[in-house]
Amino acid sequence: MARYEDADWRESMRIRYDYTHMLADVVGEHRGTTQGQLDEMAGRLTAAIDVLRLRRSPNDLAWMDLPYQKDSIAEILGYAREVEGVYDDVLVLGIGGSALGVTALKSALLPYYANYMSPDVRRHPRLWVLDNVDPGWVMAALRLLDPERTLVIVTSKSGSTTETMAQFLIARGWLQERLGESTACHIVAITDPEQGPLREIAGREGYRTFAVPPGVGGRFSVLSSVGLLPAALVGIDIEELLAGAAYGDELAQAPDLQHNLPGMAAALQHLAYHRGQRISVLMPYSQHLRDLADWWRQLWAESLGKKMSTDGRRLNVGPTPVLALGTTDQHSQIQLYVEGPPDKVISFVAVERFEEEAPLPPARPKEEGIAYLGGHSLAELINAEREATAMALAEAGRPNATYIVPEVNPFTVGQFIYLLEMQTAISGFLYSVNAYDQPGVEAGKVATYALLGRPGYEAQAIELRTTQAARPRHIV
Amino acid sequence: MARYEDADWRESMRIRYDYTHMLADVVGEHRGTTQGQLDEMAGRLTAAIDVLRLRRSPNDLAWMDLPYQKDSIAEILGYAREVEGVYDDVLVLGIGGSALGVTALKSALLPYYANYMSPDVRRHPRLWVLDNVDPGWVMAALRLLDPERTLVIVTSKSGSTTETMAQFLIARGWLQERLGESTACHIVAITDPEQGPLREIAGREGYRTFAVPPGVGGRFSVLSSVGLLPAALVGIDIEELLAGAAYGDELAQAPDLQHNLPGMAAALQHLAYHRGQRISVLMPYSQHLRDLADWWRQLWAESLGKKMSTDGRRLNVGPTPVLALGTTDQHSQIQLYVEGPPDKVISFVAVERFEEEAPLPPARPKEEGIAYLGGHSLAELINAEREATAMALAEAGRPNATYIVPEVNPFTVGQFIYLLEMQTAISGFLYSVNAYDQPGVEAGKVATYALLGRPGYEAQAIELRTTQAARPRHIV
Repeated sequence: MARYEDADWRESMRIRYDYTHMLADVVGEHRGTTQGQLDEMAGRLTAAIDVLRLRRSPNDLAWMDLPYQKDSIAEILGYAREVEGVYDDVLVLGIGGSALGVTALKSALLPYYANYMSPDVRRHPRLWVLDNVDPGWVMAALRLLDPERTLVIVTSKSGSTTETMAQFLIARGWLQERLGESTACHIVAITDPEQGPLREIAGREGYRTFAVPPGVGGRFSVLSSVGLLPAALVGIDIEELLAGAAYGDELAQAPDLQHNLPGMAAALQHLAYHRGQRISVLMPYSQHLRDLADWWRQLWAESLGKKMSTDGRRLNVGPTPVLALGTTDQHSQIQLYVEGPPDKVISFVAVERFEEEAPLPPARPKEEGIAYLGGHSLAELINAEREATAMALAEAGRPNATYIVPEVNPFTVGQFIYLLEMQTAISGFLYSVNAYDQPGVEAGKVATYALLGRPGYEAQAIELRTTQAARPRHIV
Repeated sequence: MARYEDADWRESMRIRYDYTHMLADVVGEHRGTTQGQLDEMAGRLTAAIDVLRLRRSPNDLAWMDLPYQKDSIAEILGYAREVEGVYDDVLVLGIGGSALGVTALKSALLPYYANYMSPDVRRHPRLWVLDNVDPGWVMAALRLLDPERTLVIVTSKSGSTTETMAQFLIARGWLQERLGESTACHIVAITDPEQGPLREIAGREGYRTFAVPPGVGGRFSVLSSVGLLPAALVGIDIEELLAGAAYGDELAQAPDLQHNLPGMAAALQHLAYHRGQRISVLMPYSQHLRDLADWWRQLWAESLGKKMSTDGRRLNVGPTPVLALGTTDQHSQIQLYVEGPPDKVISFVAVERFEEEAPLPPARPKEEGIAYLGGHSLAELINAEREATAMALAEAGRPNATYIVPEVNPFTVGQFIYLLEMQTAISGFLYSVNAYDQPGVEAGKVATYALLGRPGYEAQAIELRTTQAARPRHIV
């Protein structure tokens, strides 16, 4: 029996949310939320959960059912067994939603510095995620790898993402030069099941493919093959990950605000936004969870940063997500958070039990200045600092909350991912925006095509050049 | 003759600042700056530069003279020669200003993936910076290294930084266990020249030491031994780095706003802040420069995020620095920047010439969807995307500027560091704050000591427990 089939174990791995320091009683009337405001939100939460339940379907919000995809899991695990021992390196080409989730899973669930371990300790391929087109960086990555022992995963839902397809052209050439005919065995495509350039190329060239399910947008795709395939290839327990996500789903169904974690977090953040606290900081005190916060940055920014409301009013709304890391950023950002403008909400992520304690040896005689550290451990230290920082912020009238994660494992990571997705979906209702589109990136894409001379964008190219020529440059 | 001694070469490596898209003509009257507003700032800039010139001295703003420290450079290079070939790994223990600058130099100036290269290709030790106290992460790093072949650099200006001294206790124990008596040869301390626990310990145990010059605060210390010693040990040309910084100093002396890069950037950002654009995004389109932007995050937040003005008025002021990376964050944050609230200024960093072009192989017949990429290179692509994004933001009425870096090398990185430090110092005057203290972190430090039971903090411990006990927790 897998441990996650035990209800007691699941309950022991339940993520909680401490919002004591979000309340007006603690941080002051103008900075915090009152019980009355929360009561007013209760009805809106019920409505949001009802709507989400109605829209939950393969044709609409398909991401909500990702925890339950038995067939895809079997397919992914089957492929992982098939290629076991064949590759030393797995190289993911992708950007945005095709990269951030993979990186989050890698950082959270592989041992630290896994890519530096010797193959027999690691027992799985190394995992690399190339999510930029910096030329030196991309080429240096390829020079590090042996094409004969590398699997390239190209991930693009549309199959036409400029950066990813540019990387694909380079990586295919790099494989081809060494492997000739057998290049196709070294490429896997994760893309739309039916259409798009990547789907067509994969079909013609005979690549193994996995589908991004219809209705699952990039930033909600980490629990689809997009995140699961690379994770499975490097030995992450994706069944436990999905069991955790299903548990998060269960928690998110609680109908009343006081027991609904994502609903309470969404409500408090929404109220804070309308009090002028428009910057939302996520600050894990765990190196493992840093990249999960970076994944959330996309989820939050692209889903909620919108010009128009769903009923056509101009809003220009959206909290700005900021990633900070504890304790590191105590020595970089906390000065501003405590003393700067009161325009932020800080959400800490606490880990209750770390994989090891790291006890501190006692200081020597005469080392009075550091003697107080002896007898403590790094685990105690990092948690004491988090607690101290949360209290100091509260005393300074700065609202903050804490997600409490019992320990970092596939179950809690899957659970946290699902809870944050639900929090985002509920927030979409509260802000009255469509959380699933991104119309604001279109203009930049068109301008890129125009600058690169893509056929069909000639008119835009002329327009751009004209605008630029007419505009005097101001340069120091 | 070193290339930086050639005036033409230096001029060819001059960093520029394009602020076209910051102006009201382009982004609209309520979003951008008018010529009239800039004219009003000109006098304040002159005053700021005069004051900085007066305060520039070993007893006050000592960081301003760091580009010219011949003696320290000789000492650092002498030590680097002394230990050449002795170590495989250099492990820096430090946090905040003791880590961010080292990491920025490492990322910018070492080859990508340098730590993965074979020793004969790399020709220098690997460099690791441990800037957190996550127990699993710290212990995993130590397990990766061989104490016999590792140099541990402990950096703390005060000599008492909790996180760093906790790491020191662990690292010293780790060395001791294997090396016994010769442990001291494997530890270097960078700290105050006279006082503090680390200085005392180093004296007693016989560690090699380097000084953080008096008057140089942590976040302005990257061009002191704090950044230079680790950089020199891994083969970064620190003389060229300082020559670049000196060139930045020269540029920053221009008395008129129209020719003073840091002055113009500070003035435009300050005007934007008071228009409600309180979030300042730094977005390099270069993987090398990502961590330099992270270093700047501390510089900007801790220097400008202040409760009180220098003349004792309560301000609670300070822009919130945000790090974004191009093109990566186009697929994460740009939706929000284009459509969300108009509360941001985006500063791009453009690199004109990359270390390689990375030409794209042409697509194959029938691959119409990606054929437009053929004949271009990744270098062209990344720069086209930056340009397209800047234009799209401008069209949406979102102010943005671009630092133009001819190429990434020690000279331009030193120059950029100095320019950003000057921009911060000038901003300090514009915001009327002391840019060199950080009183807001004190409460958190005290609370940490109290929670850890440090002698002398018993009263605070009781107070904390009392506050906590009296405060009902609210947890979902």
